[in-house]
Amino acid sequence: MSNGLLKGKKGIIFGALNNQSIAWKVAERAHEEGAQIVLSNAPIAMRMGEINELGSKINAPIIPADATSVEDLDNLVKKSMEHFGGKIDFILHSIGMSMNVRKGKHYTDQNYDFTMKGLDVSAISFHKVLQTAMKNDAVNDWGSILALTYIAAQRVFPDYNDMADNKSYLESVARSFGYHYGIAKKVRVNTISQSPTMTTAGSGVKGFNEFINFSEKMSPLGNASALDCANYCIVMFSDLTKYVTMQNLFHDGGFSNTGVTQEVIEKFGQ
Amino acid sequence: MSNGLLKGKKGIIFGALNNQSIAWKVAERAHEEGAQIVLSNAPIAMRMGEINELGSKINAPIIPADATSVEDLDNLVKKSMEHFGGKIDFILHSIGMSMNVRKGKHYTDQNYDFTMKGLDVSAISFHKVLQTAMKNDAVNDWGSILALTYIAAQRVFPDYNDMADNKSYLESVARSFGYHYGIAKKVRVNTISQSPTMTTAGSGVKGFNEFINFSEKMSPLGNASALDCANYCIVMFSDLTKYVTMQNLFHDGGFSNTGVTQEVIEKFGQ
Amino acid sequence: MSNGLLKGKKGIIFGALNNQSIAWKVAERAHEEGAQIVLSNAPIAMRMGEINELGSKINAPIIPADATSVEDLDNLVKKSMEHFGGKIDFILHSIGMSMNVRKGKHYTDQNYDFTMKGLDVSAISFHKVLQTAMKNDAVNDWGSILALTYIAAQRVFPDYNDMADNKSYLESVARSFGYHYGIAKKVRVNTISQSPTMTTAGSGVKGFNEFINFSEKMSPLGNASALDCANYCIVMFSDLTKYVTMQNLFHDGGFSNTGVTQEVIEKFGQ
Amino acid sequence: MSNGLLKGKKGIIFGALNNQSIAWKVAERAHEEGAQIVLSNAPIAMRMGEINELGSKINAPIIPADATSVEDLDNLVKKSMEHFGGKIDFILHSIGMSMNVRKGKHYTDQNYDFTMKGLDVSAISFHKVLQTAMKNDAVNDWGSILALTYIAAQRVFPDYNDMADNKSYLESVARSFGYHYGIAKKVRVNTISQSPTMTTAGSGVKGFNEFINFSEKMSPLGNASALDCANYCIVMFSDLTKYVTMQNLFHDGGFSNTGVTQEVIEKFGQ
Repeated sequence: MSNGLLKGKKGIIFGALNNQSIAWKVAERAHEEGAQIVLSNAPIAMRMGEINELGSKINAPIIPADATSVEDLDNLVKKSMEHFGGKIDFILHSIGMSMNVRKGKHYTDQNYDFTMKGLDVSAISFHKVLQTAMKNDAVNDWGSILALTYIAAQRVFPDYNDMADNKSYLESVARSFGYHYGIAKKVRVNTISQSPTMTTAGSGVKGFNEFINFSEKMSPLGNASALDCANYCIVMFSDLTKYVTMQNLFHDGGFSNTGVTQEVIEKFGQ
Repeated sequence: MSNGLLKGKKGIIFGALNNQSIAWKVAERAHEEGAQIVLSNAPIAMRMGEINELGSKINAPIIPADATSVEDLDNLVKKSMEHFGGKIDFILHSIGMSMNVRKGKHYTDQNYDFTMKGLDVSAISFHKVLQTAMKNDAVNDWGSILALTYIAAQRVFPDYNDMADNKSYLESVARSFGYHYGIAKKVRVNTISQSPTMTTAGSGVKGFNEFINFSEKMSPLGNASALDCANYCIVMFSDLTKYVTMQNLFHDGGFSNTGVTQEVIEKFGQ
Repeated sequence: MSNGLLKGKKGIIFGALNNQSIAWKVAERAHEEGAQIVLSNAPIAMRMGEINELGSKINAPIIPADATSVEDLDNLVKKSMEHFGGKIDFILHSIGMSMNVRKGKHYTDQNYDFTMKGLDVSAISFHKVLQTAMKNDAVNDWGSILALTYIAAQRVFPDYNDMADNKSYLESVARSFGYHYGIAKKVRVNTISQSPTMTTAGSGVKGFNEFINFSEKMSPLGNASALDCANYCIVMFSDLTKYVTMQNLFHDGGFSNTGVTQEVIEKFGQ
Repeated sequence: MSNGLLKGKKGIIFGALNNQSIAWKVAERAHEEGAQIVLSNAPIAMRMGEINELGSKINAPIIPADATSVEDLDNLVKKSMEHFGGKIDFILHSIGMSMNVRKGKHYTDQNYDFTMKGLDVSAISFHKVLQTAMKNDAVNDWGSILALTYIAAQRVFPDYNDMADNKSYLESVARSFGYHYGIAKKVRVNTISQSPTMTTAGSGVKGFNEFINFSEKMSPLGNASALDCANYCIVMFSDLTKYVTMQNLFHDGGFSNTGVTQEVIEKFGQ
């Protein structure tokens, strides 16, 4: 399937770990829609992942970068522009990690070094990507930049832990930077708030199966798949959504505006 | 318990049907806090209710009014001002009814005459109260006007039916009229979005027991009682909240910002 | 420009009055993207408009319907299905009118017959369209239904008058019906909250020029045009946005999340 | 004025710098309403401020604490409980500082060490206060904890810089911790989103006069004063608001839900 929506466009995609990753699907779909891609991931994630396979498949160079390192990001942006022979049109930030979650620390018993580390990786990294892109004047007018987020930024899902606070920060960065980048260069910045998705990252969270199940039953259309999320990213990168900016866009089968479904309420009889 | 928060203030309270009603509790508490009250209800509701008992107890006259009738409301406002010998300080609108719900019509099979009737009773009546008060210059500067609402205005609870749309309209009226009344007379207008409450009105809704139960388990503090809601109304009528206006205020034990609780998620294991 | 995004799809578009109308642009763009269209408008609007010209251009039959008449809507839906030889895939509701605005009634001095009439035309009509479509089983699985709205549903813009309350109701209908239609048929229902647009409808509002100007300066990307709005509608009708439902989507150059711009704040020096 | 709303209650108030501070007013008002207080501030702020004067006036000990230091906070909480001879009932967090703002760094040219420092002081400090209180089991059931915030967490005000992102994080902490503290101990946690206020902190922000002026003209009731904010804090600490938790409460004269006022729009004529 292709509609040529990204014909001639160039983009950087962060966070493709393996073929379950949303970023992986976005890269595949963007390629199908006519885009050229540079892939990036953390050096350590690249050793675990199968990103080289993806790079070959879609003819995309892979440039490692620790997204918390301004130096790495600067190198990535400059190399990408060299590779493309010009500016880029879109960026996907699909990066998140909580050290507190990994180490089994409860939300009310955080290790603040872990808190800071997770926040840097998951949220401040997005600001660093944006600031580095802007300083290099790397993005064409009307370019589109996306980060993936989750509704825990608005409501509490206890196992999501401090990632909720990280996602709130991330969404605020999208608004704040979106304002400045919009005025300066017509570049738009948005977040997509996706259904819980059974990726390698997601599956590490405690109680994730119950959670996916609950979300499925609370969403009138069911949970959105990684491929559907990729399709939504494609339209947000395309020229058909030029005036959408500074928004948090729910891609969740209706979960966000559903108070309860008939199927769920029935569990609360007697 | 009394803190004298409403000493010297005068108010009109709509919707006290019996001692389970939130409006009944508000009237009792307002009286305890030093206010003088006029009670009003629809002529038909007054025949069913025990409002005379309340009137005697708190020394409040009862002036019937169909809240969809501008003529009745005009009479009520004028009579209240006569009774008080001056302007009023606060109004509570606790009125709602869906004909579609009463007649068992599904949300997707509405009778539009019922829809219009329910909307008039539940939401446009609030505009009529405000407009009548303003035309009679009946409210003192910095007066406070409240209507009760429910979170179905933001998210879908299927059994709530077209009351959801009515409550959205009601909340919009609070914002819109709050703007104009604020600029003209410093009068503030807000809605309180209360936990589901086992009143006569609530108990008529299909599946209400399951619903109360679900809400209880999804609220970190549990459902708020009618008495606690009355306390919140008191503070919103007092001079301690003078700069809160055009807001929808959740009084719900945290329900509105809880995505899921541990207790609920456990029902979704294999 | 065409990406074939709506190839093979069939839709009904309400509200194309003349070539400034957003609905007109949506019809043109949907045609370009491969869709077949049925146009509809109120009988009275059709006499004023140039809709026949549009019908010829995109080869679309025109079926008049008063959107407040369930009978007219039923006829429209049935005739459309006959014309297409099957079910439809998308619907655009671009209908709004306030009698209070037309007759110069201030928000605090409403004529409630006007209020009801405007609400029926602007908001309940959307429920009627949805209910009629559902009763006729007229929409394919994963179909997409849109209504146009404005941010006055969330915040007060005084000249927008009772249209604000109408739009709140409309957006609530999108959520409520979106829930039921999603569960029953995977049909999604959303609203697009568009920048103020210089259409025939818009230009009738008092102070509209100042308002467009303010909005332009408060939007980091500037106001979105009717054509850009049409493009956004296209992607929302396409299969690339299948899991977006029950949402209100801001298409406004960032206005909704901008508190103030540098250019605006400068007007507030000493 | 006193209504005895906090009779017998004990609380810790952070951030009283001088008599323009909101925290200062809260301390005075809480004392008037019958509460006992412990005051705390950063050691460096205490040298600049006149907090000793306040301490004498309301008979409150002053215990310095760097709010980014878990050790200092632990000492503060323990000393406060010793002083009170028991648990506390309320806490006010009124702490914020952006190094990027102080050093004149634009939002798109941040020094990330500054970013981290400001975030720690302004937002993570609130988590540290909550976590320390919980670990010491320092708060009575139904206690109430507040932090002050600003609407820049929802919408962009360019000069507010990275404080916007800090406030988003802070508000998320209120929700997340409010969930856990509510379930564990019925303790409620909220933020109050206050009008811009001419305090020592506020007056350091570039263009603050224009900003106050804009906000005044965009608020139907005008900007809320520090004293009115203090009154609102009092009711949120009282037992009359027991079921309000995990909320962000706008105390802003209606600013948050006003799209534009007549007075502002008039500046945008030809």
